[in-house]
Amino acid sequence: MLSDEDLAIILSYFKPLTKNKNDILLSQGEISQQTFFVGKGCLRMFFINEEGKDVTRYIAFENQIATALVSFITKQPAMESIQVVERSELLAISHIDFNYLMTIIPQWREFYCSYLEKAYVNNTNRLMSFTTMDAFERYSQLLKINPNIVKRLPNKVVASYINVSQETLSRLKSKT
Amino acid sequence: MLSDEDLAIILSYFKPLTKNKNDILLSQGEISQQTFFVGKGCLRMFFINEEGKDVTRYIAFENQIATALVSFITKQPAMESIQVVERSELLAISHIDFNYLMTIIPQWREFYCSYLEKAYVNNTNRLMSFTTMDAFERYSQLLKINPNIVKRLPNKVVASYINVSQETLSRLKSKT
Repeated sequence: MLSDEDLAIILSYFKPLTKNKNDILLSQGEISQQTFFVGKGCLRMFFINEEGKDVTRYIAFENQIATALVSFITKQPAMESIQVVERSELLAISHIDFNYLMTIIPQWREFYCSYLEKAYVNNTNRLMSFTTMDAFERYSQLLKINPNIVKRLPNKVVASYINVSQETLSRLKSKT
Repeated sequence: MLSDEDLAIILSYFKPLTKNKNDILLSQGEISQQTFFVGKGCLRMFFINEEGKDVTRYIAFENQIATALVSFITKQPAMESIQVVERSELLAISHIDFNYLMTIIPQWREFYCSYLEKAYVNNTNRLMSFTTMDAFERYSQLLKINPNIVKRLPNKVVASYINVSQETLSRLKSKT
């Protein structure tokens, strides 16, 4: 269990931050320096592929964490950008402080480890969906697992999350 | 640093195991109970997609670890199988023992955490390659990052790793 003292130390490293719709928190090619906790609003992680197509990898809503995790792990330039989808109230922690907390608070390392587990499961499910499912199946799965994405976000973002055109998404929506 | 005593404890939980080519260590649909360390040989993790196509997700050579990680994390039936590609000398640890070691040896948890990091980076690169690269680019990247897969393994396995037909793989090989 995390003691009140350790919790106070952890929270002291987070800085509150309000960001507007469409603000970019990290650009593809930069090294990721911060992790964001979403208090209110929504962030998305996306990349532009070689055909110039916008692909959304992950969407973080309230009480979720958003970071360019590969760049955090490898300290290499991020292959993705982080963008504000809805005006958001965030808590930001620098990666220097994030790593420092792991050295002084064992539960913070455990938290990171379980965050990695969730990220791994999520990414594998995405990988499986791209290699085993067609567009309709990907859309049906999204509706089941993460209906908020379909209900709350513009078609443009939903389409880029399941990697279809907006026209295809409209057809899929009318089929269900 | 890991003390000699802790190392001895960790090793005492691993059981040596020799397995023949094509042996199945875990079948899609079973709950993953063991993690394998490859001393010699090669294992692959694969699944059969809905069209009946064989897709290889990960290949573990010497000194690498193979497990159905999502099943280990979620304790749900595995979406993939583990198969012996070359006759292999393995060390196996049960997941009960794996988790027990995390509670008694902090460095074992750290090891697991850094294993998760590597698995996450690897899977994300795979996800990016399926959404941003064509077959030729995937093959070129594989040659650069993991040439052993192309050099050591049969065409059938290589093709299923980059998700192309064996005919396409032969064409790609002749182009490079």
